[in-house]
Amino acid sequence: MNYPSKLVEEAVNEIAKLPSIGKKTALRLVLHLLKQEEAFTKSLTQALTKLRTETNYCTDCHNISDTAICNICANKLRDHSVVCVVEDTRDVIAVENTHQYNGLYHVLGGVISPIEGISPSELNIESLVQRISQHPEIKEVILAISATMEGDTTAFYITKKLQTFNVKVTTLARGVPVGSELEYTDEVTLGRSILSRVKYEQ
Amino acid sequence: MNYPSKLVEEAVNEIAKLPSIGKKTALRLVLHLLKQEEAFTKSLTQALTKLRTETNYCTDCHNISDTAICNICANKLRDHSVVCVVEDTRDVIAVENTHQYNGLYHVLGGVISPIEGISPSELNIESLVQRISQHPEIKEVILAISATMEGDTTAFYITKKLQTFNVKVTTLARGVPVGSELEYTDEVTLGRSILSRVKYEQ
Ligand SMILES: [Zn+2]
Ligand SMILES: [Zn+2]
Repeated sequence: MNYPSKLVEEAVNEIAKLPSIGKKTALRLVLHLLKQEEAFTKSLTQALTKLRTETNYCTDCHNISDTAICNICANKLRDHSVVCVVEDTRDVIAVENTHQYNGLYHVLGGVISPIEGISPSELNIESLVQRISQHPEIKEVILAISATMEGDTTAFYITKKLQTFNVKVTTLARGVPVGSELEYTDEVTLGRSILSRVKYEQ
Repeated sequence: MNYPSKLVEEAVNEIAKLPSIGKKTALRLVLHLLKQEEAFTKSLTQALTKLRTETNYCTDCHNISDTAICNICANKLRDHSVVCVVEDTRDVIAVENTHQYNGLYHVLGGVISPIEGISPSELNIESLVQRISQHPEIKEVILAISATMEGDTTAFYITKKLQTFNVKVTTLARGVPVGSELEYTDEVTLGRSILSRVKYEQ
C-alpha cells in the first residue's frame, strides 16, 4: 500500500503486529485516531504503557493482580481445597462468569506447543507442583484446558507430574454444547458425549 | 465483566473505544501485550503518539502529508486540470491503487450527516470552492463520494457550490461491479446500470 505519510505507515505497521488485525483495519484505526482529539490517543497510549509496565501477577496462582496475592486467592470464603488449572486470564473470567465454581485457580500462561516453541518450563507448571506439595489442603485439581491437541498434551503432562501427590485430578466434561443442535455437533464430541452419557434427570 | 486488575480494565476500556473493537477483542489484545516484551508496547504507543501529534495535512488537498504540500499536489507530471473529491485518505489510496487516475485530489474529511452532526462547515468544502476559484487551470471536478444518502447529499451540495465556476462536475459511474453476478446485484444498481448502458466494445 502507498501510505500518504511515514507517520501513518509506521502506525499502521505497529497496529498490524497485533493478532488478527490486518493493515486495512489498522489504517481505519489510524484515521480514526487522527479524527479524534489528541487527548483520545493520549489516554489510550497511557493506559497501554501503564498496563505493560505496572501489571503484577499473583504469586500463588499467577493470575493478573493489582496486589501480591489476588482477590480470589485471598478470599477465605472460597474453597481452598480445589484448584482449577487454566491457560490464561480469559479462562478465569469465563469460569467465574458461570457462577458454578468457588475454588481457586492456577494460570499456566499457555499450553505446551512444540510448533510455537512453548515448552513446559515456560509455563507455570513447576509452580503448580510446588503449590500442591506445600498445600496438603488441596484435594482436587481440575484441568480446564482447551480440548485441542496442545491442550491434551498439557493435561497429560500435568497429570503425570501430579501422580505422586494425594490429589484427585479431574477434567471438564466433554459433550454437546448446551443449546446446540445435534446435527451441528462434530462426531468426536458426539462420540465422547455418548461414552460419557449420564442418567437423565427431570 | 470482572477484570483481574484495574490496569487491565482501564486498558480494555480505552481499546474498546476504537471503532468495531469490542471488550472481548480488547481483552485479547491486552493479554497479547502482556505476553510480549515491554519494547513491543513501547514502539506501538510511540508510533501512535507521533502519529497524533506530528501528522500534517497538505494545505492544497488536505490529504495527510509529511510535507506542507503533499507528493501528489507537488508532482508536476500529474494532471493539474482534474481534481478528484473524496471523503478521506483511504479513498485516495483506493483510487491510486486503480492506476487509472493521474489528476489531483481534494479530501473532504467526511460527508454531510445531520444524524452524526456533521455540517458542511466541518468539511473541506469551502476550501474546495476557493481552490477552484484561485486555479482556473482546473477544468473538471470528479465527485468520488460514497453512493449513500449522506454521500449523495454531499455531492449535491458541492455541485451547487461549484455552479458559478467554469468547471465540469462529474461523478463515478454506477453499475454492476466487475466480476459480480447479476442476480446478486441490488435492483437500484441494476436499474442505474441499465439507464447508463454503454456501447458494447469487444
Ligand atoms: Zn491468586
Ligand atoms: Zn496535496
